[in-house]
Amino acid sequence: MHDLTAIVADITEEMLAAPDRGRPADYIPPLARVDVGKFGMAIVTLDGRVFTGGSADELFSLQSVSKVFALTLALGRVGDQLWNRVGREPSGSAFNSIVQLESERGIPRNPFINAGAIVVADVNLGRGAPRESLAEFTRFVRHLADDDTIAVDQEILKSESETGYRNLALANYMKSFGNLNRPPEDVLALYFGQCAIAMNCVQLAMAGRYLMAAGRIPDSGHRIVSAARARRINALMLTCGHYDASGDFAFRVGLPGKSGVGGGILAVAPGVASIAVWSAGLNAQGNSQLGTLALERLAVRTGWSVFDGMNVPGI
Amino acid sequence: MHDLTAIVADITEEMLAAPDRGRPADYIPPLARVDVGKFGMAIVTLDGRVFTGGSADELFSLQSVSKVFALTLALGRVGDQLWNRVGREPSGSAFNSIVQLESERGIPRNPFINAGAIVVADVNLGRGAPRESLAEFTRFVRHLADDDTIAVDQEILKSESETGYRNLALANYMKSFGNLNRPPEDVLALYFGQCAIAMNCVQLAMAGRYLMAAGRIPDSGHRIVSAARARRINALMLTCGHYDASGDFAFRVGLPGKSGVGGGILAVAPGVASIAVWSAGLNAQGNSQLGTLALERLAVRTGWSVFDGMNVPGI
Amino acid sequence: MHDLTAIVADITEEMLAAPDRGRPADYIPPLARVDVGKFGMAIVTLDGRVFTGGSADELFSLQSVSKVFALTLALGRVGDQLWNRVGREPSGSAFNSIVQLESERGIPRNPFINAGAIVVADVNLGRGAPRESLAEFTRFVRHLADDDTIAVDQEILKSESETGYRNLALANYMKSFGNLNRPPEDVLALYFGQCAIAMNCVQLAMAGRYLMAAGRIPDSGHRIVSAARARRINALMLTCGHYDASGDFAFRVGLPGKSGVGGGILAVAPGVASIAVWSAGLNAQGNSQLGTLALERLAVRTGWSVFDGMNVPGI
Amino acid sequence: MHDLTAIVADITEEMLAAPDRGRPADYIPPLARVDVGKFGMAIVTLDGRVFTGGSADELFSLQSVSKVFALTLALGRVGDQLWNRVGREPSGSAFNSIVQLESERGIPRNPFINAGAIVVADVNLGRGAPRESLAEFTRFVRHLADDDTIAVDQEILKSESETGYRNLALANYMKSFGNLNRPPEDVLALYFGQCAIAMNCVQLAMAGRYLMAAGRIPDSGHRIVSAARARRINALMLTCGHYDASGDFAFRVGLPGKSGVGGGILAVAPGVASIAVWSAGLNAQGNSQLGTLALERLAVRTGWSVFDGMNVPGI
Repeated sequence: MHDLTAIVADITEEMLAAPDRGRPADYIPPLARVDVGKFGMAIVTLDGRVFTGGSADELFSLQSVSKVFALTLALGRVGDQLWNRVGREPSGSAFNSIVQLESERGIPRNPFINAGAIVVADVNLGRGAPRESLAEFTRFVRHLADDDTIAVDQEILKSESETGYRNLALANYMKSFGNLNRPPEDVLALYFGQCAIAMNCVQLAMAGRYLMAAGRIPDSGHRIVSAARARRINALMLTCGHYDASGDFAFRVGLPGKSGVGGGILAVAPGVASIAVWSAGLNAQGNSQLGTLALERLAVRTGWSVFDGMNVPGI
Repeated sequence: MHDLTAIVADITEEMLAAPDRGRPADYIPPLARVDVGKFGMAIVTLDGRVFTGGSADELFSLQSVSKVFALTLALGRVGDQLWNRVGREPSGSAFNSIVQLESERGIPRNPFINAGAIVVADVNLGRGAPRESLAEFTRFVRHLADDDTIAVDQEILKSESETGYRNLALANYMKSFGNLNRPPEDVLALYFGQCAIAMNCVQLAMAGRYLMAAGRIPDSGHRIVSAARARRINALMLTCGHYDASGDFAFRVGLPGKSGVGGGILAVAPGVASIAVWSAGLNAQGNSQLGTLALERLAVRTGWSVFDGMNVPGI
Repeated sequence: MHDLTAIVADITEEMLAAPDRGRPADYIPPLARVDVGKFGMAIVTLDGRVFTGGSADELFSLQSVSKVFALTLALGRVGDQLWNRVGREPSGSAFNSIVQLESERGIPRNPFINAGAIVVADVNLGRGAPRESLAEFTRFVRHLADDDTIAVDQEILKSESETGYRNLALANYMKSFGNLNRPPEDVLALYFGQCAIAMNCVQLAMAGRYLMAAGRIPDSGHRIVSAARARRINALMLTCGHYDASGDFAFRVGLPGKSGVGGGILAVAPGVASIAVWSAGLNAQGNSQLGTLALERLAVRTGWSVFDGMNVPGI
Repeated sequence: MHDLTAIVADITEEMLAAPDRGRPADYIPPLARVDVGKFGMAIVTLDGRVFTGGSADELFSLQSVSKVFALTLALGRVGDQLWNRVGREPSGSAFNSIVQLESERGIPRNPFINAGAIVVADVNLGRGAPRESLAEFTRFVRHLADDDTIAVDQEILKSESETGYRNLALANYMKSFGNLNRPPEDVLALYFGQCAIAMNCVQLAMAGRYLMAAGRIPDSGHRIVSAARARRINALMLTCGHYDASGDFAFRVGLPGKSGVGGGILAVAPGVASIAVWSAGLNAQGNSQLGTLALERLAVRTGWSVFDGMNVPGI
């Protein structure tokens, strides 16, 4: 058994001292102002212990990490029919690329690029109003994290709504191919809202527990998805969770993970732990510079990489 | 512990009876003639037991499965310098696509698409002659599999050399960007040669043992690569091993794997087993139709998916 | 001197009898209902004579033919600064392609693909309201054609506004790159409006007179643009006026021309004539099937192709 | 009637003094060494007068200008069947782009990009040997120019053959789609040979006379192609003759033209003149910097732009 207290302390110390911290997202003002000097980390193990380091209690904007929970919710609503409207392949392109949509007739490559997440939002919107659907989504995340204080950051939401032209382009483009049921504006109201949820590392690691535990929340035993579906969401996180740096993240870290431009990353060690890291500075691919490094260090120290056979017993 | 004997027997029986068997590769005559009615499977566990089903002793053409061993050899020659010449990201494109090479200045996306494997062959060729380099490669595979009978199928080699215009295009294209050191013809002589190696499922599963065992051959303890490198090769197999169906393979099977148009697939359950399956009929993405299905069944029966936390003990 | 009366009569007769008439645009209902059995044609010569055939007096929807007049207006407003925001090259792509915009940072290839025409509309909108800008545009076209009855077809406009998701995608996409000054909805209100103008062949041929006459309206001598600018607009019509069939149109017809999905085409024989043809059935590239054929016949009969040196005197 | 003697003198003087001269092609050493200080120009009028300026007698490498004569020869061999193997549309891409070939199944966009010219060379090779086919091509050019001294520059040919990896990639790629009949090496032997022909401005302008004169050599009356075919070759030169700067060339110059990386450009004023300019410095698109500027000046001074109606008599 690893001394996770020491490991988390060591990694936090190293991250707080790291000279190259990346740059915060600059596309909306409230994100651009976040202090890149901060770093937070939280690990929740299968047996319920929690290990934290740095600013693990500081709220940050969930952004694209929300796509994991949105996908989970959508699969609960329409099941595998979702895959008629969105693919399961890495895109090889940036998070907001529109190119593949043209040759692939409006079907996004996977649910973790923006276009795919917009289709997922259309599913989650269903026939409802954006406000009610966002409230439902927020309740779902609260349930996963067992924390009723989680809420949408209204300043972030307002900024995103005002400047989201690229996402409006993606939504209208898919609408032109018939791959959105609802008006683009309504779908994006939900999408921008889910992205604007604020969480801290502890809340995020708690919310991800079902993914390490075959679809159930470990302490309550409450089933969120089937074991097969949890496995598949993990697979998608590994192959598609970091846009066009997904391969590199798998190569370096070896854990299913999903990043957001708010600087957060949720990572899953199946059967072992749910992990959240946060630091607002991003690398060239738009993923948290220190968050990625911290997870790389963690995987080396613990052997939790899914590609590492050493801490697995023989059959 | 699973009853692997029964599992392999069940899967083999199901595969032999499967109605939809895919179509054999048709680009060279010797591959097009292979009987799609056959299916073979072999599992070698960490502790050295071997389980076989169907035509596990029948030779097939290794084709792109050879890219795993070639990558391993090249990393041994030049280490991480390799990554200056080839990327580590899924391509989102077909195995023989030339499009990304243009916008990315002759740097292939990963070592498992053809362009990337041609760069790897250029590394393995070094300053040598193609014939000697191919002999060296064959010796390496024999060593991995502990079987000195493994050899190049000369009929396959002759056919590939005569019709490999697409690969010649890729090689000349990368040469124009300065990303091949040796003449394209020489590099392809080695590349076509490694693809033309014939192996059976038992030999292939044996050859893959170092990937489940942190870089060592389990019985001899001989180190092939470091544990970190074995982990990273597994990561690349998972994200890039099945071309533009890599995401789907991870979603359905959840094991690092590498396919070839000869119908073989090598899969790795880290810390647990090395697995080879073979059936000549291919699906639309050029991967073995029944091989993929057999591995999906195996992952479900054993819980070996790297995304499945259930048979992993807590920390 | 050609007997244009006979030539127009012959061509009209052939077109009315042609078996393959193409298919009308189907993206909005009012266009889909237009009778493909009709054909109209009008030629206005430099010296002011008018030759007509078939349904030369029947109104049709101007659609993309309006882009010529919009470009003319925009060049009058901002001059060559326009070329900082839109290119002058054939796109090699369909009229509504979004792909090049991504790699070319939101700068459309030319003012005759939809994206480019949307930038032009943003220029023409200036700081005004869409309604006033559309009224101004309509007045400009009336002036060119010397016909105050020309007006917007409100049914067409309503249909376009309701289904223009692809154009909304293009506009929002360029807005995300900062290449639109005004809100996408306002820009498209003008764009949809200009496309919805209804004209007949006589009106359209009259409106195009300044392009054959070095920038002046021949009878009044009123200057619309400089001779150099008229020449350049003609050049753009020839290289870019028929989307990804521009090369074929130049090859077959050899005249600067601009087509619209309403089935109209405006063509220019510099120094000689302004020509309008109309037939609602479109070919595979979205250009009028019979309109193109009629212009091909006309060029052969008259030698008006700009690539034909035979009716040009020596220097 | 224009004073062409004065016009040519003025333009030559301006070009020799121009500060920004572009950069010579650097991909093979013999081209990189050419002096960018030189400029040459020759005009041959329909009535046979010849006007020259600067280094009009200095040999330069024909390079891609040869594609016009190769196309003419191929159309003579197989007629319009050629268009089954190569398109007639501007590519919107660089001269050596391979991207469109993938999505368009090995059919090049037009005969003036490298891929298209390689298909044309395959046609001209027919069943012959490269050496004989090159001799035949050279004889054809000598006939057009009425000059038996025209020959292949062997130093250029040797350099091209040694470094032509990109063209080898294009040829092998099209071969993989079945769009070359002969081995890529043989096709390229002819292609490199035709590109390596050396001509001076007077010879080149003489060789282009049939394109201004409806397909006949004006003085002898010898028919090279039909009038319709000459018109269509002119159309292709205008829409596709300058790669991804074809639109800009049409916009600025307004004459059918074909450039080569040797710095030469052949331009045609239908019914009026055949024009050759040369200066080795290239602009960013790979076309002669001063050659383009000289033609722009010429078109303004003479009104020869095909889009300029002012010197054309009324009908």
